[in-house]
Amino acid sequence: MPETTVVVGGGVIGLSVAWRLAARQRVTLLDPAPEAAASWVAGGMLAPVTEAWPGEERLLDLGMAALDRWPEFAADLGVELGTGGTVAVAFDSADAGQQDTQAEFLAARGRAVRRLTSRELRALEPALSPKIRSGLSVPGDLAVDNRELLRRLRSACGTRGVTVDPRPADEVRPGAVRLADGTEIGCDTAVITAGAWSGALHPALAGLIRPVKGEILRLRPRSGEPPVRHTVRALVESRPVYLVPRANGEIVLGATQYEAGFDTEVTVGGVRDLLADAERVLPGLAEYALLECAAGLRAGSRDNLPLVGELEPGVLVAAGHHRNGLLLAPVTADTVYALATATPAPQPTTR
Amino acid sequence: MPETTVVVGGGVIGLSVAWRLAARQRVTLLDPAPEAAASWVAGGMLAPVTEAWPGEERLLDLGMAALDRWPEFAADLGVELGTGGTVAVAFDSADAGQQDTQAEFLAARGRAVRRLTSRELRALEPALSPKIRSGLSVPGDLAVDNRELLRRLRSACGTRGVTVDPRPADEVRPGAVRLADGTEIGCDTAVITAGAWSGALHPALAGLIRPVKGEILRLRPRSGEPPVRHTVRALVESRPVYLVPRANGEIVLGATQYEAGFDTEVTVGGVRDLLADAERVLPGLAEYALLECAAGLRAGSRDNLPLVGELEPGVLVAAGHHRNGLLLAPVTADTVYALATATPAPQPTTR
Repeated sequence: MPETTVVVGGGVIGLSVAWRLAARQRVTLLDPAPEAAASWVAGGMLAPVTEAWPGEERLLDLGMAALDRWPEFAADLGVELGTGGTVAVAFDSADAGQQDTQAEFLAARGRAVRRLTSRELRALEPALSPKIRSGLSVPGDLAVDNRELLRRLRSACGTRGVTVDPRPADEVRPGAVRLADGTEIGCDTAVITAGAWSGALHPALAGLIRPVKGEILRLRPRSGEPPVRHTVRALVESRPVYLVPRANGEIVLGATQYEAGFDTEVTVGGVRDLLADAERVLPGLAEYALLECAAGLRAGSRDNLPLVGELEPGVLVAAGHHRNGLLLAPVTADTVYALATATPAPQPTTR
Repeated sequence: MPETTVVVGGGVIGLSVAWRLAARQRVTLLDPAPEAAASWVAGGMLAPVTEAWPGEERLLDLGMAALDRWPEFAADLGVELGTGGTVAVAFDSADAGQQDTQAEFLAARGRAVRRLTSRELRALEPALSPKIRSGLSVPGDLAVDNRELLRRLRSACGTRGVTVDPRPADEVRPGAVRLADGTEIGCDTAVITAGAWSGALHPALAGLIRPVKGEILRLRPRSGEPPVRHTVRALVESRPVYLVPRANGEIVLGATQYEAGFDTEVTVGGVRDLLADAERVLPGLAEYALLECAAGLRAGSRDNLPLVGELEPGVLVAAGHHRNGLLLAPVTADTVYALATATPAPQPTTR
């Protein structure tokens, strides 16, 4: 008999873990609300270089390792990757000052980033506003259509015989997962991959993971707008905003950031800021269709690094990925696979 | 045998006509897309005084007659009316100049409107911004939850035995309505109530009715915001914006206006303007949840007055109500009832 594993939470981390483990084990995936996953609401940037700031050296190194792992992961799942790269832009002179700090940090870590004038920026991405002060080119970044990825992962889990159960879980302990309806599912291993909701599932996680709300918008070009080819990360009067283009021209525009508990309502102020900041960077967006406004909860950890490891024998955790769940999913799944099957991880561990 | 009538289009006009006629006739209502109706997307203001401008004396008179008819209409359907009245506000001094013109026009027509200073405005509606220049109080206006009204009308149609058919119609002629699938429905009378789509149904309407796109947003208070008690109609740097509160605190915020064919996509620019203008009038909106962004097509006519009458024997029209479909529905249904049953109209005709 193969070993049995219950994976608690079906966002990108849970799905990746379940898919990998199902190659050797009998896996049940619990998820009552797949569209509540932070990875469903996300933009799909795989952009570790422009994510990292001074003091987050480990996150940068981890992110770069994860980026290297992505092409194989995507190929296994049949998912296309966006390879246009990132341009980071600074709207005003104060934003440019912040960007200088980031560029110096990256240069000191040996990362190749090229500074761009406003004119060079627009040669690279003609849709950008001429009012933008300066920028950085980061050619190696990738992007993925996060919803397509999640669909492919679900399908790949199905192919490998993963049982998907929509009942919510209440508590994880060695040998069993207790559901909200009182029933227990026995297992050799349980893996907590419930993102922002992980903290309530095991006492060792209490206080370590908190929800960080983010709002995003999905836009579609209507006619005539030149396509956006790069992921654009901007600072606009100190507010970060990103625009991730899809192959079909659609754009995911994100993201606000609030720490206000388990609140997933889209607010007037959040949408107003996202639209205003994005239009200052890409004025042509005014003509785009607004397809969707959504909010999700990132799983914040104390140091912005994920929690991946064993809590006690038979209980693993892979949560707290904050803004980096999609980027880190392949290496996180590798690590959990190694821990759960007692085989060496094929990649550097995530922690 | 009772006479048979086919009503083509199930927005507020078609539903009101079908309901009234079903008291005496056998009625079929055709509507493939009830949520495409302008009345589904609308705000629900029943506010003829602040709608009228110099040159639109007939629309003002018609609207006032319609307003008088509403309490009975609503009582018959069991729908609550909002009775908080309207405050019209002018954001800057140029807006105040436009409002002066409107106030003088209304005074000359004998309508009681009271001018308000910024301070008086906020005594009446504390949520308004102190930056607003001036305003008008229009206490007699009403408001209706348009979606609740449409649900009640559908239910009342069902009670009276109206047959609802979701197939789209292609052409209306004496004695029959031809459907898009080629079948014909015979009838004694056909009534064209297809709003912006009416022009294509009968040659006499060609060129008389055009779609006028409008975008609206639906907002819900989250916590602590003082409730908005009045319908607020504002001019903000010459752009009109309205906010219609519901009994439960929700607000419908509208509406943009574009003439661009049968386009019902919500645009970035439209939402940006609505949010920005509304927040300048009611700063507390930033904390509201954004529940829905939607667009609809008003049925514009050449003179902003509806087309209600007989096109040829056995073919009636009630369309072209532009921004006033909800307000004018009861009197329009009265007029169509009188024409279709050859009984005197119980109210002044709408044209």
